[in-house]
Parts: sequence; structure tokens; C-alpha cells
Amino acid sequence: MHPPGTADRPTIEFWFEFGSTYSYLTAMRIEDCARAAGVTVVWRPFLLGPIFRSFGWDSSPFVLQGAKGRYMWRDMEREAARLGLAFQRPSAFPRIALLPMRVATLGAAEPWIGEFCRRVMRQNWVEDREIDNDGAVRDALDGLVPDAGQVIAAALNPANKLRLRANTEEAQARGLFGAPSFFVGDELFWGNDRLSAAIAFALGRS
Amino acid sequence: MHPPGTADRPTIEFWFEFGSTYSYLTAMRIEDCARAAGVTVVWRPFLLGPIFRSFGWDSSPFVLQGAKGRYMWRDMEREAARLGLAFQRPSAFPRIALLPMRVATLGAAEPWIGEFCRRVMRQNWVEDREIDNDGAVRDALDGLVPDAGQVIAAALNPANKLRLRANTEEAQARGLFGAPSFFVGDELFWGNDRLSAAIAFALGRS
Repeated sequence: MHPPGTADRPTIEFWFEFGSTYSYLTAMRIEDCARAAGVTVVWRPFLLGPIFRSFGWDSSPFVLQGAKGRYMWRDMEREAARLGLAFQRPSAFPRIALLPMRVATLGAAEPWIGEFCRRVMRQNWVEDREIDNDGAVRDALDGLVPDAGQVIAAALNPANKLRLRANTEEAQARGLFGAPSFFVGDELFWGNDRLSAAIAFALGRS
Repeated sequence: MHPPGTADRPTIEFWFEFGSTYSYLTAMRIEDCARAAGVTVVWRPFLLGPIFRSFGWDSSPFVLQGAKGRYMWRDMEREAARLGLAFQRPSAFPRIALLPMRVATLGAAEPWIGEFCRRVMRQNWVEDREIDNDGAVRDALDGLVPDAGQVIAAALNPANKLRLRANTEEAQARGLFGAPSFFVGDELFWGNDRLSAAIAFALGRS
């Protein structure tokens, strides 16, 4: 799990989904927060759909429970404002994100992963744009990689598809049940509200 | 909703259940936090059971979803420690709390409500004691009222039982879906993590 050369630096795994509302609030700021604390972020893309289906749900709890869903949109507005982040409620939710999730899986250890994820998140949560297509992903990769088409082709490689599925199975096996989540070693933290606790825990055990 | 003489002081409604884990973390500190901010707390007891049943659940989501339940107990330990609160995982969960909830309903506007609620919470979450009985409720009322037996008898009055039911129906009608929750006017905040945001909102609109 440690990127090369950072083996004794405190590390936090960030498990996220582009279709997850509160993952947006974390993705936009986790690198800044972690850098300020001297903690390394490991980006861990996974799919929420199979996790929710394992609970017998065919959609997000924010869709299945009306009152919770209505609250969540208001809470997102307030929390985005508090954190200084732009936010526009998307016209589609939860948005399918398979292609950008596959690209994030391919690039999880690349230097461009943070900026790529922030761009995809902005497409979904600020620009209200569909993200599960070639054009959106090319825009998100623009200037970050020499050849976006080549990266997309590699993301569609069966081995990479399987890697995303394996991530999701690992998430489930380790007790993860929602997004965003953080692991510091085996210690699990759930929700954007726990980012600072997870970083503090990473520092405490380093 | 305003206690007499506080009509122009900012007010926060605290909706809670003695059987709710995160309600414990709020109940123990809300009066101190609100007092420091110059905000008045209105204690609003309600029953979570009927709310959960309206979602088709026959128990707490922490019981129905194993992974979420396991996480919650660990998170409670961490959060209680962070807030400087004692905590022991109870041997029964969720604990039935009907009698103390009825007493809280009766006493919601009395000066003893805060201390009574903290004592019941401590019985459940620190002493691992059953709370839905005469002895526990008498201990929690001890020294707070002249005659605990009379208070308990009044709490068992049909009109007071109906008031707790009406509270629960009001909660549901206003979009409440879990505990603890806070209302500032019609603005809903959910979870112990939102206590400071709710207090800030109450100050901002005063």
C-alpha cells in the first residue's frame, strides 16, 4: 500500500466513488489536508453499487429513504458552503461513473490521480455533467497525461476492470459499507466528517 | 416552543432517544455547548422505533446492517474518548426506554430535564443498566423532584403517553429520520456531528 519511498510516512487510504455525494466534499480537499499534516494519501476507488446490493438495496439509501435523501441535499449545500466548495445538485443521482472509476483505478498511484479525481467530481457536482463517457474523461485527463486515448484504452483492459472489481471486494471484506471511507492500517473511518479524525489517527500511530 | 421569557433568545430543538447511541454523545454536552453560545435548548424526546418501522425496518440499522453496526461501536468508543465522555458498550442494544422517555416527555420544559436525561443516558451507556423500569427512573429522578413516584405516575397518565406519540408523529411529519436531530426553526440537522453547525445556525438567524 505504500507508494515507493514513503514507507515510514503516515498513510491514509481514501476509499471513494465519483457517484457519492460526500466523497465529493472529501476528494476536493484531502490532498491539501493530508499534505498540511505530513500524511500520504492512497487513492482507493471502488464501486458502491455492489456494496449496496449486498444489503438488499437496489439504489442509494438517499434514493430509497425519501426523508434522508431530502435532508442530504440540504446538508450538502450547507457543508459545501462551510468548506468553501462550489456545489450544484446534479439533475441525475446517483450518476453512473464506471469509465472514470476505471481510469482512477488505473491511475491510483500516478501523480495525476488527485487532479483527475477533482475534475471528475467537479463535472458531476458542480457542472451537472454526465461523467460515464469518453468526452468527459478526456476533458478530465487533459494536460495530465501525454495521451488520454491510450489511458482510456488501458483502463478498459480486462485486467484493469478486474482490479476495480477486486478493490470493491476488498472494501467489502474489510468491513467498508459506505463512502467516503478511510483506512489507517485496519482502523476504519466513515464519512467526510471523519477526515480529520482519520488524519489524526494516522499521525498518532506513525 | 419558547420557554417563557426567552422568546428572543436563539433556540435549538434537541430531538433524542435514550436508546440511540449518538444521542448519548450529544445529551451529555448540549447544555454546556448551548450555554457557552448563548442558545436555549428545547428537549424533544421522541421514539425512534415507529420511524424505523415506517422505513420497513424492524430494528436499528446498526442491528440490521452488520458492518455498519460493528463500525458504529468502534466509532462510539473513539468519539466518546475524543469528547472526554465515559462509554461502555451495553450488553443490550437497542435498549427499550419507554418509561424514561415518558418521564422526559412530562418534564421536557422543567429545570431538571437536562440532569435527568444525562443520568438515564449514563445508566444505559456507562453503567450497562436496564432503564425501562421504576427503579432506574427513580434513581435518575433522585433529588431532582420532591416526589419521584408522583412524577412517574403522571408520566404514565394517558395524556402524557399520547404526547410522546404526538412528538414522534411531529418528528416524522417534519422530515426527521434519525437521532440525534436538531431543528432551528424548520432547518434540520442530523447527528451528533452537526451539533456545532446547528448552534451556529441558531446564532446566525437570531
